[in-house]
This record gives sequence, structure tokens and C-alpha cells, in this order.
Amino acid sequence: MKTNKFKFEVLKECKQSGARITRFTTPHGVIETPVFMPVGTQATVKAVSPEELKETNSQIILSNTYHLYLRPGHQLVEKMGGLHKFMNWDRPILTDSGGFQVFSLSDLRKIKEEGVYFSSHLDGSKHLFSPEKVIEIEQALGADIMMQFDVCSPYPCDYRAAKENMERTLRWLDRCYNAWTNENQALFGIVQGNMYKDLRRESAIATASYTDCPGIAIGGLSVGEPKPLMYEILDDLMPVMPKDKPRYLMGVGSPDCLVEGFTRGIDMMDCVLPTRIARNGTVMTSSGKVVIRNAQYKDDPRPLDEECDCYACRNYSRAYIRHLMNAGEIMGARLASIHNIRFLHKLTEDLKKAIWEDRSLDFKNEFMKKYGYN
Amino acid sequence: MKTNKFKFEVLKECKQSGARITRFTTPHGVIETPVFMPVGTQATVKAVSPEELKETNSQIILSNTYHLYLRPGHQLVEKMGGLHKFMNWDRPILTDSGGFQVFSLSDLRKIKEEGVYFSSHLDGSKHLFSPEKVIEIEQALGADIMMQFDVCSPYPCDYRAAKENMERTLRWLDRCYNAWTNENQALFGIVQGNMYKDLRRESAIATASYTDCPGIAIGGLSVGEPKPLMYEILDDLMPVMPKDKPRYLMGVGSPDCLVEGFTRGIDMMDCVLPTRIARNGTVMTSSGKVVIRNAQYKDDPRPLDEECDCYACRNYSRAYIRHLMNAGEIMGARLASIHNIRFLHKLTEDLKKAIWEDRSLDFKNEFMKKYGYN
Repeated sequence: MKTNKFKFEVLKECKQSGARITRFTTPHGVIETPVFMPVGTQATVKAVSPEELKETNSQIILSNTYHLYLRPGHQLVEKMGGLHKFMNWDRPILTDSGGFQVFSLSDLRKIKEEGVYFSSHLDGSKHLFSPEKVIEIEQALGADIMMQFDVCSPYPCDYRAAKENMERTLRWLDRCYNAWTNENQALFGIVQGNMYKDLRRESAIATASYTDCPGIAIGGLSVGEPKPLMYEILDDLMPVMPKDKPRYLMGVGSPDCLVEGFTRGIDMMDCVLPTRIARNGTVMTSSGKVVIRNAQYKDDPRPLDEECDCYACRNYSRAYIRHLMNAGEIMGARLASIHNIRFLHKLTEDLKKAIWEDRSLDFKNEFMKKYGYN
Repeated sequence: MKTNKFKFEVLKECKQSGARITRFTTPHGVIETPVFMPVGTQATVKAVSPEELKETNSQIILSNTYHLYLRPGHQLVEKMGGLHKFMNWDRPILTDSGGFQVFSLSDLRKIKEEGVYFSSHLDGSKHLFSPEKVIEIEQALGADIMMQFDVCSPYPCDYRAAKENMERTLRWLDRCYNAWTNENQALFGIVQGNMYKDLRRESAIATASYTDCPGIAIGGLSVGEPKPLMYEILDDLMPVMPKDKPRYLMGVGSPDCLVEGFTRGIDMMDCVLPTRIARNGTVMTSSGKVVIRNAQYKDDPRPLDEECDCYACRNYSRAYIRHLMNAGEIMGARLASIHNIRFLHKLTEDLKKAIWEDRSLDFKNEFMKKYGYN
């Protein structure tokens, strides 16, 4: 037994969909799922303070191992007391493994059995990420949840390559598992297999066999494939995913994907979307996206979303936020980011209520219609 | 009597210096002076929220008429309920007159008796600011304190031009005074006269003759002249400045200038300095400036200033803020801006304590030494 610091309970399963309400206990507190996790790539959720994140009801945030390793360096973070103290966030944190980032470097990386050789996007310096090295980095960072180092396949990808990457991911899980020594951190394995159902199932069963891992993730989706294909893969995969631990769908978090994922039994999701589009002036509202820079909002006294309870919506008009965006003011990025994060949390909370009432599919249909999805 | 909505009381005069503690009552609350006023050029103090400003103990903020007139437009602000509501700031606001901004446009403006013709720095469109137009704009914005439209002289400036600009400023004060109709707003005249003591005194006496104006300002200093010259001008000018209203030194607010100004009997000062240098990674501390990007702060676990009580200093290390700055994260600008604003307020509060104790000059000497000024 690698750790007994994590606990997981399923409180409810929706009779309509199998969507779950669960409690996942970590050393930095309890996470109630379904949960959306905002992303703080460089040890800060862009433009938003920890206190503001708490006010949006953020329970856990994600940070990126690849970025923190390069700058400011995992050893520096460790010396400063770990990631929680460094960034002033006392609730749970999840660190990814850098697998997706080094995979995305394309020209700058070479994948071998021992690990991935890559050049820094900051200064071109050469590095090797091996499963052991990544766990060393993640343990120095000290997040509650560490992701295994994995190999992501692109879309499209031929069967042989997808199989090789999936199998290598399993071998790397074993090496990560052996390198994992800190009982205050949970290791999550990652299911790969691209868009091949048999590979996904094989990967899920093998990954689940690491029963000491307090959670399990699905990686390599939302990599360019059509959304219906992603949902098809999930539909086929979920029956073989373990029920006794949190199930995390990585890097997926648009409003429709959140609802589609959670109603399929996913418990955790993350995405940079809410903060990224916010900085460009796009906000999500209960009746669809609003591009706040548009002239039509010039003298609009309404909040971004009349159904929202966030700081931005309680205190500012669309006209003001549009002005801030057009004037290049940081406060515009702050307000839109807070709003978008709160929007995804509120959507998740509303879905949770529907799960308690065994009507999560009705909720999904109502939401999709109102938001403007087909 | 143009207004009876403003009240002014002098609570204390320091026996060492003549520095004052006063209370200035406005429609949006009481301002205790000496006071430093942060600048929110485009209806937002860059990177800082109204709640954060309040936590730093900001009593009043300044906003810029020139910028708001061009974008989003004073009529829009008025339609949205005025500047206070638009930007969610319920404490006093002061608007400048745009005089300094159009003066700074150099190639893009022509000064005539009727007003200043200028081209927008945003789109080149042509505009005229006259005293009447500026008061119309300032009344639409609805700040508690409106500055008169004035003509600033450059440094150096020959006597004749300085005299002409000073006299025109007086004629424009008269036109502003006649255009002023809102009793919930105070008009402040502006003393000009460049570096000529006789012109300054003449201007002060004539400006003070508008006894209905609830305050009076000194403009056209800190325009490139050596600091000792500015202090000399102030020393000569202050004895003829009225004692029964707040005295505002415009656009001046470095730590040394604050202390020098307040100990000469100035009550109000403003400057973009704290937020501007913050965004570049420079912070003010009780022992001098710190350029936080410097490598020496890489693993410095201390707060920006160990004597500071601000949000940034209570929760974050120099190492973390340096990381944010190097990574180009908005949170870095936020934290450094909050700190620098709080630093100037705390400096002012400490000076105030010294004024109560009749030891403001001792305080000045101690501060200058500790901060590293000669």
C-alpha cells in the first residue's frame, strides 16, 4: 500500500445516466465531484488570485510540470516550501506529467523507451524527461495528485503507433509507480489508446490493475478528433473503468464537453479554456458565448450573465468590461476570467443537483438547447 | 455660493514644519489628509480592483478626463450612471482636466484663447477642449472633484511664455467657474507660473480669490526641473496659498516628493508611479527600491518589504513574485501594484503620526536616510 491518505466515496449515481456524485479526500481537503479544475500553468491561474478562485468555488487547481520544471525550477519550488506555499493555495493541487507538453513540442523532441529528449521552448536547452525524473519533479512540487508520465498519440494515428504508445505508457506507469515514494501524493495512471476501442479497453484494464493508485485518468482525447467520436470512445470505455476511484478526463472542459463527460460517469475535468478565451474578451453565459468587444455591448448595462453570481456579474456592466478590454486593461482579463471559471463551476453545480434528482440527461438536453448547441 | 456639499477642517499643524492633518468632506465620503491618490487613468487603477484599493486604504482615486472623453466617451459613462457606478468605486474621485494630456501631445495640438485643438492619440480624430467643454465632460463623468482646464508650461520656459500661460489659465478658470453648475462637484483652480516665483504668487492669489472653489491645486511642477528647484518654488509659494481649503500638488508622488510636499503643507498628491513601475517589476520598500526581476531574489523567501502589511507581503515571497514577473503573469503586476500603492499610503500614514507628534521633519530625515535618499 503506497498511501492511505486518500479516501473515495460514491454518494450517488444518477439513474438516468450513471453520472456520479463523489467525495475524494486528499491531504489538502475534500473534493466533491463532479468537479471542473481551473489550470494554473505557471503556478498561477492567469489573472486570478487564490482568494478569487475560492470565491468562484474552485476546489482544486491544476499546474503544469513541464512549465514549472523549466521555470522557476522544481527544486526552487521545493526550497520555497512546495507548490501550495509558493503560490498561496491551500486546497488540493494536481500536477500533470509534462507528457502532453513535450509531445506537443513536435520538432523539439524525440521519444525513446527511456523517456523523451526535448529542447526547452524558452531557451533551447536540452532535457530528458523519464518516468523516474517526472516523478522526482512532481514529488518536489508536492501536489496532492501526480499524473504518470505518458505518451500521447496524435489524431489521426495508425493502429500500430497507437498501440505502441499505449503499451509504452503502461511500461512507464510501472516505472512511475516504482519511483513514487511520498504517501501524501496520489499517483494517477493514464488510459491511452487513441481512437481504438480495443486499445482503450486494454489500457484501462491494465491501468486499473495498479490498485494502489487512488485515481485514474483518460488522456489523449480532445486532440483534434470530432466530438462525437470522443463521446463514442468514452461510451465504450466507461464500463471497464474502475468505479472505486475518481475518473479524470484530461484537458477537456468546454461547457458541452463538461456536461457530456460528467453524464458519462467522468468525475474530474480540466481545461485552460475559461481563462484563455477570457483574455481575448470571450465569455460564456447561460445563453451562449458573448464576444464582449463587439459594438453591440457598448452601452449594455447588464452583467455578463444575468444568471451568474460571480464578482464580475455582481458589480460590473458589459459596457464597462467591454471598455476595459478595448483599452487593454488588466482588470478586463481579471473580470472575464473570474466569470468564466465561475460559469463552469456553476454549470457543474447545477448538473450535480440534477444528478441528485436522477435527471442529469434532462438537464443536459435543457442546457444544450439554452446554450445554443445542437 | 456654488456648493455647500464640501467641508474642510484643519485638525493639526505640525510645529516643526507646518504640515497639516485635515478632513475634507465630499459627497462620497471624508478624505483625511495628507493623502496620496492612486491614478485610474482609464476608469481602472491598472491591475488593481476597487476592493483591493480599499484594503490598501485608498481614500480617493484620480481618473483622466482626456482618456475617458476619447474612450469610452463621457456621454457613455454618464448613461451608465456616472464614473463611480461605471467603475464600481463608491469613494471620492477626482478628475483632471485633460490640460496636461493635451499639452503633452506636442505635435498633435494647437493652443488658442478659445481652447486647445488636438488630434486623438487613438485614431487621429480632431477635437477641441475649451474650458466650457471640459467642465461639460467632467460634469458628465461626475467626479467629486473637477480640475479646471489649464495651460501647463514646459521646463525650461521663458518668462513671457510662462506669464502668458499663467494668465490664460486664470481666464480659463473664470470660464470653468461660470460653466460649473453641479453642486455635488467641487471645482479646483490650478496655480501655474512655471519656475518664476512672482508668477506663482500672482497666480496663487488670483486663483484663491475664487473662494467658492472648495480646493486649490498647484500644477506645472515635476515637469523636468530638478527636485531642489521644485522645493524652492513650493517654499516660496506656500505662504500665499489659502489655508482654509485643501492644497493639491498635481502629478507628484515619488516617496521623497510625497514627504517633501506634505511637510511643506501640501494636503493631496497623486502619481502613476506606483502602478507604472510595478508593472515593470520595481517595488518600493522601507529600505529603498527593489528590482524584483534581479537574480538575487530568485530564492528569496522574504516578502517584498518586511515592514509592509499589504496583501502581497502577507502572502507571497519575493521568489514567487519574481517568477511571476519573469513568466509574464498578470498576477505579478497585481501583487507589485497593490504593494506599491500600499507603500505610499503607509508612508503617508506614518508621516501623519509624526505630524500629530510635531516631529514631521525628524520623520522626513529618518525616512530619507533609511530609504537611501541623500
